[in-house]
Amino acid sequence: MLAEIAHIGADPRGGYSRPGYGDEDRELREWFVGHAQARGLDVHRDGNGILWAWWRPEGSAGKAIVTGSHLDSVPGGGGYDGPLGVASALAAVDVLRARGTTPSRPLALAVFPEEEGSRFGLACLGSRLMAGAVDPERALALTDREGDTLADAVARDGLDPRHVGLDRAALDDTECFVELHVEQGRGLVDLGRPIAIGASILGHGRWRVVVGGQGNHAGTTLMADRRDPMVAAARLIVAIRDLARGVPDARATVGRIEPVPGGTNVIASRVAFWLDVRHPDDLVTADLVTRIRDAVALIAAEEGCAADVREESLSPTVDFDRALRADLRRALPDTPELGTGAGHDAGVLADAIPTAMLFVRNPTGISHSPEELVEDADAETGADALADVLSALAGPSV
Amino acid sequence: MLAEIAHIGADPRGGYSRPGYGDEDRELREWFVGHAQARGLDVHRDGNGILWAWWRPEGSAGKAIVTGSHLDSVPGGGGYDGPLGVASALAAVDVLRARGTTPSRPLALAVFPEEEGSRFGLACLGSRLMAGAVDPERALALTDREGDTLADAVARDGLDPRHVGLDRAALDDTECFVELHVEQGRGLVDLGRPIAIGASILGHGRWRVVVGGQGNHAGTTLMADRRDPMVAAARLIVAIRDLARGVPDARATVGRIEPVPGGTNVIASRVAFWLDVRHPDDLVTADLVTRIRDAVALIAAEEGCAADVREESLSPTVDFDRALRADLRRALPDTPELGTGAGHDAGVLADAIPTAMLFVRNPTGISHSPEELVEDADAETGADALADVLSALAGPSV
Repeated sequence: MLAEIAHIGADPRGGYSRPGYGDEDRELREWFVGHAQARGLDVHRDGNGILWAWWRPEGSAGKAIVTGSHLDSVPGGGGYDGPLGVASALAAVDVLRARGTTPSRPLALAVFPEEEGSRFGLACLGSRLMAGAVDPERALALTDREGDTLADAVARDGLDPRHVGLDRAALDDTECFVELHVEQGRGLVDLGRPIAIGASILGHGRWRVVVGGQGNHAGTTLMADRRDPMVAAARLIVAIRDLARGVPDARATVGRIEPVPGGTNVIASRVAFWLDVRHPDDLVTADLVTRIRDAVALIAAEEGCAADVREESLSPTVDFDRALRADLRRALPDTPELGTGAGHDAGVLADAIPTAMLFVRNPTGISHSPEELVEDADAETGADALADVLSALAGPSV
Repeated sequence: MLAEIAHIGADPRGGYSRPGYGDEDRELREWFVGHAQARGLDVHRDGNGILWAWWRPEGSAGKAIVTGSHLDSVPGGGGYDGPLGVASALAAVDVLRARGTTPSRPLALAVFPEEEGSRFGLACLGSRLMAGAVDPERALALTDREGDTLADAVARDGLDPRHVGLDRAALDDTECFVELHVEQGRGLVDLGRPIAIGASILGHGRWRVVVGGQGNHAGTTLMADRRDPMVAAARLIVAIRDLARGVPDARATVGRIEPVPGGTNVIASRVAFWLDVRHPDDLVTADLVTRIRDAVALIAAEEGCAADVREESLSPTVDFDRALRADLRRALPDTPELGTGAGHDAGVLADAIPTAMLFVRNPTGISHSPEELVEDADAETGADALADVLSALAGPSV
């Protein structure tokens, strides 16, 4: 199925760039809707832009078992992060039907928008809106790189900004959410196993750091007269790495930097960069970020610059629902459990409903990169396992 | 006159962004052509995209005295860097006519495209092409940020790429070129004087540094497992500043950096940044760049990355023509002489024809920034001085 979308959002620099609420997103949705309708599922798109495909067998009752993932990507990302979980959800429906299993609870496939937050800076935007984990006013005012607000983007994408936000009815109607996802590290490679049950998600946050200096001419301004925010930002990127290295299990990353105006022969007047910090212990994350803030203040001052650090998102460490994990272990005996450093919609929704995850082996161990990979056999094992889980959760056939 | 173009290429982040061979450039050209034609000057655009406006009084003879500058800007640049010299050339024609001076040599006003090199990375592109200082094949293959080649851009801009390159006839027909320009440092402010005669241009070059590492997920990749080109680039930016600080009179700047893919939750796979180095002594520049290259190799290796340093342009220090400078000193007695750290078309053309410059005071001392400024009175003093110079160079009235 993923071969059918291999052309959508292909980035000339490699991999895929599929930001949320955009043209690529619409094409990907059309692909999903086509597959869902071909399976006789009842499709609708909710006020937050989440796509739902329902299988409500006659006689089924009770709250829904929901599975799914996302279709958007980071810039230059791999082809499996997100789409594997969506395609596996569709495939699991096929597996259940091939087995003659008809769930006694409604089954829903969900596709969440802007999970990566690569357009509006806030990861898991769709699930955060649904769960009420972000204030809709704040979310609608978020801007992308072109300066468009989320309010503009959803309106252009056919949604009504007034309907964005907490979806109490959908949460109340959901028994649990199980998300299948490509593993984004080497856990399964090292274990020599094709799939794992998710145990936890590392707490993580994003901060936007803006360093302001004095823009000037690169040729006429003596080194001693400069207040160069690029040098301050560079010192900070090194300091952040060094601070994170000193904290076991911490990860701190700067992957995006934008100097203004960004000319070769111009000392920048302002440099913005984004900081991603993660650690299993939320107090350690908070402490590391405090020390990074101190470094920002100190180094910016030493370079004659001003600096501002703004939190864009902060998610505590999530341990997936214990009872639901036990259900998964029973449905998939002898399957290992693994934590992950990556954020997921299942982590955001864990505050509102029981959630769980399945991870599928990634032989390269590399993700958010064109080198991300899933072998066909592992993808099939994953879809079968998801079918086993859905079958167990949805109860005996009606 | 500059108020008439204040709306063209205004950058929402501040200042002006007017890349060469683009839409803003076309609008600016139309403004110039309108003023030139209103003065009865004979306008044509040559094969390199240089605009020429000729005043050939009846009875005038001999090679032309040429003045002018450029209309393009760095991203977010000021309103005077370039346009002041073009407007002053038009104003000088008015001054000469108001004085009843009719030059006995032809007088030409020239507008050079892409002087800043902010679109195609090569500064003084128009004058380099005219002077044969860049191979046309190499120039036409240069690409902008969108991946368009110069060949594409000039073709879309109404030029024939086959006619780009050395313009022997124009050089042979030029007696000398005098460029008036806003000063880009504090020389005149410190002297308390409105104008200066240019003495020299600091040698300078541009290098593109590309650091390649391993793109990966910001959450799942342990700090110890990373080969992060952003950290390597940051260490290099700091090292470059520190190396330049240790060399008296050297300036080294990184004002542009582009991580790929540039996502917040993605360890970059590749980071490109651009290096600008200047020093009055070309051997010192070469030595500093050699030491920067050594640092690039060392630091990239320490970070498990690969790195490449490519020279994009290199211009030796230019001392303006001695005889022509003496003419200017005679025409403008008691005017100070000043060197500059900024590159100019007059510097590139100095290899082919006698060139000279006039600088006009910039009260902020800041350039390549919206804070660049010229007072009206100083602009008038500059235009009068340019008229004095043109009058002296073009000989007694016919």
